[in-house]
Amino acid sequence: MSITASALQQKFLRIRENKLFEALVITIIVVSALVIGAKTYDMHPTVYRLFTVLDWAITVFFLVEILIRMAAEGGLRAFFRKGWNIFDFVIVTASLIPFDESEMALLGRLLRIFRVLRLVSIIPELRVLLDAFFRAIPRLGYVSLLMFIIFYIYAAMGSIFFAAINQTLWGNISVAMLTLFRVATFEDWTDVMYETMAAYPLSWMFYLSFIFIIAFVFLNMMIGIVLQTLQREFERSALESGEGEAAEVHWIREHTQTIELRLARIEQALTGGVQTADPGESPPPR
Amino acid sequence: MSITASALQQKFLRIRENKLFEALVITIIVVSALVIGAKTYDMHPTVYRLFTVLDWAITVFFLVEILIRMAAEGGLRAFFRKGWNIFDFVIVTASLIPFDESEMALLGRLLRIFRVLRLVSIIPELRVLLDAFFRAIPRLGYVSLLMFIIFYIYAAMGSIFFAAINQTLWGNISVAMLTLFRVATFEDWTDVMYETMAAYPLSWMFYLSFIFIIAFVFLNMMIGIVLQTLQREFERSALESGEGEAAEVHWIREHTQTIELRLARIEQALTGGVQTADPGESPPPR
Amino acid sequence: MSITASALQQKFLRIRENKLFEALVITIIVVSALVIGAKTYDMHPTVYRLFTVLDWAITVFFLVEILIRMAAEGGLRAFFRKGWNIFDFVIVTASLIPFDESEMALLGRLLRIFRVLRLVSIIPELRVLLDAFFRAIPRLGYVSLLMFIIFYIYAAMGSIFFAAINQTLWGNISVAMLTLFRVATFEDWTDVMYETMAAYPLSWMFYLSFIFIIAFVFLNMMIGIVLQTLQREFERSALESGEGEAAEVHWIREHTQTIELRLARIEQALTGGVQTADPGESPPPR
Amino acid sequence: MSITASALQQKFLRIRENKLFEALVITIIVVSALVIGAKTYDMHPTVYRLFTVLDWAITVFFLVEILIRMAAEGGLRAFFRKGWNIFDFVIVTASLIPFDESEMALLGRLLRIFRVLRLVSIIPELRVLLDAFFRAIPRLGYVSLLMFIIFYIYAAMGSIFFAAINQTLWGNISVAMLTLFRVATFEDWTDVMYETMAAYPLSWMFYLSFIFIIAFVFLNMMIGIVLQTLQREFERSALESGEGEAAEVHWIREHTQTIELRLARIEQALTGGVQTADPGESPPPR
Repeated sequence: MSITASALQQKFLRIRENKLFEALVITIIVVSALVIGAKTYDMHPTVYRLFTVLDWAITVFFLVEILIRMAAEGGLRAFFRKGWNIFDFVIVTASLIPFDESEMALLGRLLRIFRVLRLVSIIPELRVLLDAFFRAIPRLGYVSLLMFIIFYIYAAMGSIFFAAINQTLWGNISVAMLTLFRVATFEDWTDVMYETMAAYPLSWMFYLSFIFIIAFVFLNMMIGIVLQTLQREFERSALESGEGEAAEVHWIREHTQTIELRLARIEQALTGGVQTADPGESPPPR
Repeated sequence: MSITASALQQKFLRIRENKLFEALVITIIVVSALVIGAKTYDMHPTVYRLFTVLDWAITVFFLVEILIRMAAEGGLRAFFRKGWNIFDFVIVTASLIPFDESEMALLGRLLRIFRVLRLVSIIPELRVLLDAFFRAIPRLGYVSLLMFIIFYIYAAMGSIFFAAINQTLWGNISVAMLTLFRVATFEDWTDVMYETMAAYPLSWMFYLSFIFIIAFVFLNMMIGIVLQTLQREFERSALESGEGEAAEVHWIREHTQTIELRLARIEQALTGGVQTADPGESPPPR
Repeated sequence: MSITASALQQKFLRIRENKLFEALVITIIVVSALVIGAKTYDMHPTVYRLFTVLDWAITVFFLVEILIRMAAEGGLRAFFRKGWNIFDFVIVTASLIPFDESEMALLGRLLRIFRVLRLVSIIPELRVLLDAFFRAIPRLGYVSLLMFIIFYIYAAMGSIFFAAINQTLWGNISVAMLTLFRVATFEDWTDVMYETMAAYPLSWMFYLSFIFIIAFVFLNMMIGIVLQTLQREFERSALESGEGEAAEVHWIREHTQTIELRLARIEQALTGGVQTADPGESPPPR
Repeated sequence: MSITASALQQKFLRIRENKLFEALVITIIVVSALVIGAKTYDMHPTVYRLFTVLDWAITVFFLVEILIRMAAEGGLRAFFRKGWNIFDFVIVTASLIPFDESEMALLGRLLRIFRVLRLVSIIPELRVLLDAFFRAIPRLGYVSLLMFIIFYIYAAMGSIFFAAINQTLWGNISVAMLTLFRVATFEDWTDVMYETMAAYPLSWMFYLSFIFIIAFVFLNMMIGIVLQTLQREFERSALESGEGEAAEVHWIREHTQTIELRLARIEQALTGGVQTADPGESPPPR
């Protein structure tokens, strides 16, 4: 890389790091979000055309911004290594495709909505939250799989027994699962139950057992997983910042080792004999 | 300040601190609350006039009480430094403005309702709770912002796709957000879903993904934040009161340091040599 | 007390302690509960008369049982010192009052229902749970009071603004509070909201702010209080049973003190001088 | 057992342990689940016959698989000692009973649904979750019993007072309990309340007290139990893996003992006297 290119990269880096530039980008994203929202209202054609111009101006701004960030990174490979950069790139380039006023225009508007998510990629606190959300997904995965299996079994039973009663609610396993999701959210579930109880008076057992399993036990499991994760994170951050009980315990452990070594030396000085108990016989836990 | 003024201030301070006076103020606030409640019932004009007189008597009492507290504080600046004092002052002075029986009378009644909140400012336990509530607001801020962004994106999508189906529910982004809030509280959300599923059979994915993100994951996040805060407060209060595990760990850490110093002295006395391991090499965590 | 009376007391005590007698009492309580349940069904007059006889037999059995327990306790004062005993006594004696087939018969049936609660007083595990429930009430008291104040303020505002719109829902402060409780449980709250939004388009702010304050923040506060209490109980029980981290920390603290004393003796033996650092300078936390 | 039989057992064991064989079994279970789901849709008779053939093929495969696992275990007693094996055996053998196209065919279909649960028995992570679920049942037992008693008492009161108002909702204690369960899930509970309030204006106290007891306090109790269990499991697993605070505390406790022993030896070497304080006076907590 030549010196001029490197100097340019430094300049772009300085722009990207600039607080004012960041504030400008956040403002443009918020404006872009407002434009998206405003377009859902009925408005005068002149205003609408104004908004379309504004929309294109925003698109151009985002294009320039992403080019600056690419140049600042000093290489496409380095740029595309970060997931959020890929996300930004897709959103910006997709906005460049000219959709004419047809079916595809809807897709164009849809893509513009996701620009609002750029607010998440630019505010670090929100990025942390969303990262935590994505990190929680695999951990909640097995619970979700077990819940899905239970939904599937109940839906299969429901569609076998109740399909003849109400085709719309229990016609096949897909709609039966949707109906069960409705029961799980307690949304007019008694209407569903009373209908089937007319044919099968004991079908309340089907609903009550389902509600107990899903709404009470599994929701608690999910809350439990979330809290456990939080507790682990909290303990780790407390240890890192050197505050709180965990940090004090760690400090004591280290100093207990120092005390043991010193005692070993004292004993040796006193007796002049060999050490009988090795202070490091069990390795430290961390 | 002359001696007489100071003596008066002492007298007012003694009145304010008086338990009986405090009980009287609480009683008057409760009576004021009951008057507010009673006025929502239909009643005989004579009774109504009686209540109006009672209302003015309460207003005068509150005025006297706030003047006593001002005098007791010994200076307007000292008085207005406390947030709750400002709150009390605004409530009392606003009651003094004479609204005639017109549109403004409604505002007068509205202001009198907030007198009930004086109960919070006078009972310390309630003040602690409300302070905790206000302190939790910024901490929940970023989660709320992320939730708002997700609401905004779903509302934009909803109003683009479903506006033609139901103008009342999805007409523009504002009503769409209100509709989504309704879905988030599970309030007749299936009615909303079945309507759009008639046009877009796959729109259940829109609702289910929204419910999963908002109602399950984010609510857990909020619970998590609340619990984390509670745990931190609990640990700190346990340390301060010198009770529980955290206090014991702190005690051990301090005494481990004492032991190390004593050991260093013993080793020196034995060997007469220089210290090889500095007991204070790593600083204590707190 | 004569020797014969004491011997009798011992005999009654042995009866009360008898596992078989306890099982019999539990069985009779369950039978009594089933009789209460069965009487809610329509039945043949002969069967009904049979149940009435059974009911009186149960009442007599309970009377005998409580007399045995009184005698076993050896004194009415000792017996009535326990809250559950008073509860049992009231239930049993109230059943003895002969209500004829009139309005009062309803009260008689009502009193018999509370016999089922005797199951709680006789099974220790349930008594522990209900005691925990009663112990939690004062702790939740201030949160409940704050919630009540917020309900009251919103209800006063609601009845001032919305009384003209719907007299049934907002007519006075009492029905307004009931309506708000309904909103807090998300029960058809949008119907309530859409009705007032027709007159006051901004009234959604009234409902949303209320739902946020009550349903999200305060419910979390309540969960937090419950969890905090649980954690404290858990830590205490862990310490008592000598298991877990808290017990280990306590053990270490005690032994650190022993080590310090021993070190002080060693130093004194070595130097023969006065102690420079008092090992007991800060008192142990418990 | 002859050498040939043992060799065969080894071979079967190798098949069972084979990752590919396990993947095949999981695939067949998923296919079986899809067949169950597909059969709930209306389909062409030819396709239906194809599915029936597929169904029998799956049954035969499961039969072969279970025989392989039986042979691998080397004895029926060893095989049937595991609960999940009994479950698998019942599901497979029940599928072998030829139900003709009659009432019993429904039972046959029902049994085939439970095949999906074989997914739980084969994926270890899901087995752990379901085991945790079953282990939580007795712990939640007493809370459930207390809730049942409260439901029973309220249902008895409800059916005595409200049976005349609405026979369908309060006719007898069974339907009253179902109605109360509906109230506990907040499902159209105000409709139930307004109906009885027409006859008994104070009946809102019945519903509100019930909702407070069941929905607020007891749900919290359940959450509390789940969290307490989680915390205990977390602490134990942290100790076992040798990570975290609990493991560090354990390490310190062990080393404090070593220090005490060494100090005792040093004191003895210095003074040559008898030990005055026994370092092991209080036994270690674990």
